[in-house]
Amino acid sequence: MKLNWGMIGGGEGSQIGPAHRLGAQADGNFNLAAAALDADPAKGRAYAQSLGVAADRAYGDWREMLAGETAREDRIDLVTVATPNATHYEITKAFLEAGFHVLCEKPMTMTVEQGEDIVRTARAAGKICAVNYCYSAYPMVRQMRAMVRAGEIGKVRLVVTNFSHGHHGDATDADNPRVRWRYDPAMAGVSGQFADCGIHALHMASFIVGDEVEKVSADFASTIASRVLEDDAMVNFRMAGGTVGRLWTSSVAIGRQHGFDIQIFGETGGMRWASEQPNQVYYTPVGGRTQIMEKGESGLCSDAARLSRVAIAHPEGFPLAVANIYVDLAAAIRGGSSDGLPLAEDGLRSMAAVYASVASAKADGAWTDARPPMFR
Amino acid sequence: MKLNWGMIGGGEGSQIGPAHRLGAQADGNFNLAAAALDADPAKGRAYAQSLGVAADRAYGDWREMLAGETAREDRIDLVTVATPNATHYEITKAFLEAGFHVLCEKPMTMTVEQGEDIVRTARAAGKICAVNYCYSAYPMVRQMRAMVRAGEIGKVRLVVTNFSHGHHGDATDADNPRVRWRYDPAMAGVSGQFADCGIHALHMASFIVGDEVEKVSADFASTIASRVLEDDAMVNFRMAGGTVGRLWTSSVAIGRQHGFDIQIFGETGGMRWASEQPNQVYYTPVGGRTQIMEKGESGLCSDAARLSRVAIAHPEGFPLAVANIYVDLAAAIRGGSSDGLPLAEDGLRSMAAVYASVASAKADGAWTDARPPMFR
Amino acid sequence: MKLNWGMIGGGEGSQIGPAHRLGAQADGNFNLAAAALDADPAKGRAYAQSLGVAADRAYGDWREMLAGETAREDRIDLVTVATPNATHYEITKAFLEAGFHVLCEKPMTMTVEQGEDIVRTARAAGKICAVNYCYSAYPMVRQMRAMVRAGEIGKVRLVVTNFSHGHHGDATDADNPRVRWRYDPAMAGVSGQFADCGIHALHMASFIVGDEVEKVSADFASTIASRVLEDDAMVNFRMAGGTVGRLWTSSVAIGRQHGFDIQIFGETGGMRWASEQPNQVYYTPVGGRTQIMEKGESGLCSDAARLSRVAIAHPEGFPLAVANIYVDLAAAIRGGSSDGLPLAEDGLRSMAAVYASVASAKADGAWTDARPPMFR
Amino acid sequence: MKLNWGMIGGGEGSQIGPAHRLGAQADGNFNLAAAALDADPAKGRAYAQSLGVAADRAYGDWREMLAGETAREDRIDLVTVATPNATHYEITKAFLEAGFHVLCEKPMTMTVEQGEDIVRTARAAGKICAVNYCYSAYPMVRQMRAMVRAGEIGKVRLVVTNFSHGHHGDATDADNPRVRWRYDPAMAGVSGQFADCGIHALHMASFIVGDEVEKVSADFASTIASRVLEDDAMVNFRMAGGTVGRLWTSSVAIGRQHGFDIQIFGETGGMRWASEQPNQVYYTPVGGRTQIMEKGESGLCSDAARLSRVAIAHPEGFPLAVANIYVDLAAAIRGGSSDGLPLAEDGLRSMAAVYASVASAKADGAWTDARPPMFR
Ligand SMILES: NC(=O)c1ccc[n+]([C@@H]2O[C@H](COP(=O)([O-])OP(=O)(O)OC[C@H]3O[C@@H](n4cnc5c(N)ncnc54)[C@H](O)[C@@H]3O)[C@@H](O)[C@H]2O)c1
Ligand SMILES: NC(=O)c1ccc[n+]([C@@H]2O[C@H](COP(=O)([O-])OP(=O)(O)OC[C@H]3O[C@@H](n4cnc5c(N)ncnc54)[C@H](O)[C@@H]3O)[C@@H](O)[C@H]2O)c1
Ligand SMILES: NC(=O)c1ccc[n+]([C@@H]2O[C@H](COP(=O)([O-])OP(=O)(O)OC[C@H]3O[C@@H](n4cnc5c(N)ncnc54)[C@H](O)[C@@H]3O)[C@@H](O)[C@H]2O)c1
Ligand SMILES: NC(=O)c1ccc[n+]([C@@H]2O[C@H](COP(=O)([O-])OP(=O)(O)OC[C@H]3O[C@@H](n4cnc5c(N)ncnc54)[C@H](O)[C@@H]3O)[C@@H](O)[C@H]2O)c1
Repeated sequence: MKLNWGMIGGGEGSQIGPAHRLGAQADGNFNLAAAALDADPAKGRAYAQSLGVAADRAYGDWREMLAGETAREDRIDLVTVATPNATHYEITKAFLEAGFHVLCEKPMTMTVEQGEDIVRTARAAGKICAVNYCYSAYPMVRQMRAMVRAGEIGKVRLVVTNFSHGHHGDATDADNPRVRWRYDPAMAGVSGQFADCGIHALHMASFIVGDEVEKVSADFASTIASRVLEDDAMVNFRMAGGTVGRLWTSSVAIGRQHGFDIQIFGETGGMRWASEQPNQVYYTPVGGRTQIMEKGESGLCSDAARLSRVAIAHPEGFPLAVANIYVDLAAAIRGGSSDGLPLAEDGLRSMAAVYASVASAKADGAWTDARPPMFR
Repeated sequence: MKLNWGMIGGGEGSQIGPAHRLGAQADGNFNLAAAALDADPAKGRAYAQSLGVAADRAYGDWREMLAGETAREDRIDLVTVATPNATHYEITKAFLEAGFHVLCEKPMTMTVEQGEDIVRTARAAGKICAVNYCYSAYPMVRQMRAMVRAGEIGKVRLVVTNFSHGHHGDATDADNPRVRWRYDPAMAGVSGQFADCGIHALHMASFIVGDEVEKVSADFASTIASRVLEDDAMVNFRMAGGTVGRLWTSSVAIGRQHGFDIQIFGETGGMRWASEQPNQVYYTPVGGRTQIMEKGESGLCSDAARLSRVAIAHPEGFPLAVANIYVDLAAAIRGGSSDGLPLAEDGLRSMAAVYASVASAKADGAWTDARPPMFR
Repeated sequence: MKLNWGMIGGGEGSQIGPAHRLGAQADGNFNLAAAALDADPAKGRAYAQSLGVAADRAYGDWREMLAGETAREDRIDLVTVATPNATHYEITKAFLEAGFHVLCEKPMTMTVEQGEDIVRTARAAGKICAVNYCYSAYPMVRQMRAMVRAGEIGKVRLVVTNFSHGHHGDATDADNPRVRWRYDPAMAGVSGQFADCGIHALHMASFIVGDEVEKVSADFASTIASRVLEDDAMVNFRMAGGTVGRLWTSSVAIGRQHGFDIQIFGETGGMRWASEQPNQVYYTPVGGRTQIMEKGESGLCSDAARLSRVAIAHPEGFPLAVANIYVDLAAAIRGGSSDGLPLAEDGLRSMAAVYASVASAKADGAWTDARPPMFR
Repeated sequence: MKLNWGMIGGGEGSQIGPAHRLGAQADGNFNLAAAALDADPAKGRAYAQSLGVAADRAYGDWREMLAGETAREDRIDLVTVATPNATHYEITKAFLEAGFHVLCEKPMTMTVEQGEDIVRTARAAGKICAVNYCYSAYPMVRQMRAMVRAGEIGKVRLVVTNFSHGHHGDATDADNPRVRWRYDPAMAGVSGQFADCGIHALHMASFIVGDEVEKVSADFASTIASRVLEDDAMVNFRMAGGTVGRLWTSSVAIGRQHGFDIQIFGETGGMRWASEQPNQVYYTPVGGRTQIMEKGESGLCSDAARLSRVAIAHPEGFPLAVANIYVDLAAAIRGGSSDGLPLAEDGLRSMAAVYASVASAKADGAWTDARPPMFR
């Protein structure tokens, strides 16, 4: 039986909405049963119905949806929150408290305190609160994680990760509202590019290595003068087990489209993965040759095998990484393991790292505790 | 309203089944309403129901399904035929005659005569008979096609295309039944690797250039001695407008995973696309630098824009190329254009080229007419 | 002690001259002692002296040089012939007969008969006649050869090689004399692009596999209408041991700069090398992962190690491949082995393959004996 | 006339010696006239003579050579110092004072004070003191420099550069003397990997952008516990014009062979170059497509054209980048411009940046003045 799924945000013309709809429905696990898709209630209702949502579940806003769904017997099993960042906390908290499982877009909250509140709320409610760190659901990222955790490259010494693009590099476009809000503290909070893209990379480091980030030393820059928040950041970090980390993120790296890559170096090997060629991992045992590992090759870990749909060298891309988050959510909702799912704790850790990095950058690069207070 | 969709073949554990289910459902156009998924009726019925098909439409075989669906008011709008090659003709013909639209897997038929029969049947029935040359539905392939047809590289002089892998290169595995049948004329017909992979490449050449293949000169080889049919083939061809073509296909190219690429060279430019990195096209204007074109960049043709779901540099892969075939099918069924859809005529042309290539290879490489008799 | 070296052709502004001078002198084996560098005697004399050649050995033409050097006690040990193709035969023959070792540019001769004559002349004189198939002297090509010959990929089933560029693709430039002569039988002989670039690729196939080409089936095209000779060719071939070969060469492949690559597929593995990234070989054992082999890595064959000068990942390029030909020539002149050196026999085989391909292309692609008569 | 050249260090079996010999002699500018090649006088003398150096100029040590050459009329025009780091200062200073031009290997000195002394000495002597930042002499690096300085990417906002390999990543090999000394302050001074490789990258940033590094914030790590000095470093920097810099260098990045790359991002474009594929630059104008620029293409700057020897897509590698340093040295010695030559001032700036980075890393990442005192 398909699970009933609801969606908030991600209306017509939104960036991430189509990936969620495709991701939730691709494998037949979820049925779009309810939605409040748009800031404009009328548009949201109309678009939801055009997508096959029944008229009485095509809501004008999320409060209406919360009330409506809470009252139904056939209430949705999962709600996705894909609205602008500043609304995530309030919506996610309300649905968790009402007993719904939630998939929240990143960043989960705007502050560390909100993040801690969501973690406590999810725990109290006994509900899943997942965060859409969807890159972690690529089959070959799962493969790296399995190999690293199995010790195949030994103790991890070093993680180097970049998430840099150049799509905000045009100064003549900097006042375009779709771009400008990201660098305006009134709308984006304490961080621009690092909170937008950097946290994917930071999450990935912990996800693969299996250790938390303990402290950071950061350098932030606003390379376009009119910007208050950073459009380029370097964050050095240390993980619980002593792993050294280096994370560069930029939105003014003209010529990079979406340069998210991660390199993991351990005592007995190194690995590299890049989001623009996500179906391969380059693996080098110490003293040996670099090997190209392929999604779909024989002998991959069960997680990588399970989350791939087509044969070797038939590429699977970003929407199917999002779909894999939904595959894991469906399993978890049905009582299975949520081993690989990014959860509220991860969303909280990201926010703590963002605040610590901001503080470090202001304090002359001083090393700063990046752990959420509740996990110290 | 979603369209009702039926599926024949593509049962549990099949190779291409998941891509069709994902492709049909990814964009919310189709609802899996009826199915005869497996050679084993019981397994097929059970698996269909596990996928949400109602018990009375989870059929044991395709004849049962044909009878059942023909009798219903809410009959399916489209049936996909994803069974082994030798059954395509019979099933496709029967459903067309009964008034259903069909998406048939490649190769559409085993002989040229069957191919002509399907073309005539589809025309007589006034129904769409599409063939799953799904690579042609990648956004950046459509972009190439649009540019070539708009004359952006001038008259096309030369097409060079390869579709080569090494997955049948292990002689110790050659007797594995999953491999062996492909090189056995009793099961595979007149051609092995060329009919399996080469026809994708040949179709692509015509699809992009907009001209038909007129004649071929071929060299076939069975590099593993026990094989009767070719596991490696080179086919030189000429197109209607004089374009020179070169097509290499192999299944013993150890180290190539799925090396399908195409290069188009015209009077004023060249282009290159590869299926393992499908979101880019390399384009070189004569006398100028090679430019990397990205899926999702601004200014692409409407077809490329329409068939992409996520932003630039968020890769989209094989299952979403299949999904694009369904996007176009949904549009065509609803009365829109079927401009980009590969149709029965294309399936027929492939079969004519296969037979001509086999004949040429036997005749010392002699140039041989590759057009179906009905199109001469 | 340095060897004395003479050079004919390769004057100021010539394309290949600098590579020979750099190649001969890079490793300190040769001293440029005599030269007849230019079609224009005065320019040749002046340029030679500017390069440090003594006035009495800065000759106006090759006959003068032949006479002058033959008469000296300290005569040159080796002469390089880097003049236009049509002069190679006459010059090479004359110097061999006079007892000089010769390095001749490719193609060695214009006809098969001339080629046989050079082979006989070199044998009679007991002198080395090398041909500058310089790509075969890249360290990683030698590594492939050593591995293939040691059986590391089993019996070779298939060789696929391309040598294609787009530098003659501009029809508006086709009458430029620097381009036009190549497609004019009066100046270029029977073949254009195949005799210019294709023979490098064909030599490489034999060089690595260790077998000769026995027969060919060819398709030639002049994609620019004003051309008599081919600017694009496909040559299928069979080698003595049964290996299947496919060779594509083009000069109208706009966007390809210098796309010379070769793939070797055997029973137990595959390998790939490309001239634009010459310091790596991609090697895939059957059933295993592709491995990236690096020039300079530990454990390479002695030939690959010997012919590299700097550490791993410090790239070495085309001029040092030419230099490696001179390293091997110096060793051979000093009495060492000439194991890897391309010799007159190879130059002859190329010419026989060119004539056979031309004949096959004219004979509807018929398979044609490609062996020189004297080797049948 | 060839210039007379002398060499100190770079004996038989040394790593960099062959590149200097090849580089100096490749283009016929220099003649190896004198040498003190080895720590072992007898071996040095013998090896020099085997390379063609006259017996009386095949010296046992550099002091003997200094005395001998100073006394001769036909004294060498240039001496290369390719000995271990700790000896560079003393030898370079002595030869400059005696009136010789010097090419010193990097790092030029062990301390900032020594660096300032060399700058003053070279100025006082009126002699060239070049430092072998040879990567800066690749044609396509010169092309980037010319474009950046001509404003083709606008004001430079950001430079991101990496120089990372994994060849010291094997802990079981860490006590190998060839590796260990690099991380031992008694032999290597204050810095390990940053002083060895990082300074190439830092020099390149200034070389291309045309601005000096003013301050740094660094994070150093010894990922192999037995090491005192860093084997991994991240250095953030700011340049005089406000450009933001990010430099990562590592010797434990297993799988990276020699990953030296640099990305330059300006107001109106971005560029990328990598040392393992040195003949291309990727250039992206803001809002446009990435273009692949090729060494040898038409329209390159005169410097890039001048420093290339063979046609487009014929790769030129590391030894010829070293050769380009000698091309520029020959020109400067003959009275031409030394525009692109890395000089003592550059060697000094590197050392100042090393000390500043070490200090910053110890001071919790604090931003630290990286300019040599004499340039503040
Ligand atoms: N995981 C990823 O890789 C990824 C990628 C892109 C965006 N995102 C995240 O997704 C979220 C949305 O980003 P986007 O780029 O799609 O934004 P967008 O501006 O393109 O779309 C936002 C959508 O939310 C709707 N909306 C706004 N307020 C609403 C409200 N109160 N109730 C209901 N709908 C409302 C808007 O009408 C619009 O349809 C952001 O938090 C962003 O960080 C994540
Ligand atoms: N377009 C492409 O890129 C592409 C890729 C792979 C396969 N294909 C084509 O898809 C077809 C299926 O290939 P596959 O690799 O998935 O094969 P497969 O052997 O993996 O699966 C075939 C499926 O069909 C079922 N089946 C067999 N006979 C049936 C019948 N009479 N009625 C109902 N179901 C039946 C089987 O039980 C099985 O589930 C072939 O024609 C193949 O050429 C196309
Ligand atoms: N091995 C390779 O990869 C490679 C690459 C390029 C060229 N080549 C070969 O090198 C040869 C020369 O090609 P190029 O591109 O340098 O040609 P080019 O036209 O650039 O130069 C030819 C040179 O030879 C001189 N010359 C002509 N006739 C002469 C004569 N009778 N005596 C002395 N000098 C004479 C000319 O003055 C000129 O300097 C050709 O045979 C070509 O096929 C080989
Ligand atoms: N520019 C570059 O890219 C690059 C690359 C590699 C090395 N280097 C530099 O080159 C220098 C040498 O490095 P290497 O890797 O070749 O070292 P190496 O240890 O391989 O060789 C050093 C050579 O110097 C000789 N030598 C030592 N002391 C001597 C003395 N007092 N007099 C004469 N000869 C002496 C040794 O016998 C040996 O032949 C170092 O400073 C290194 O940093 C630069």
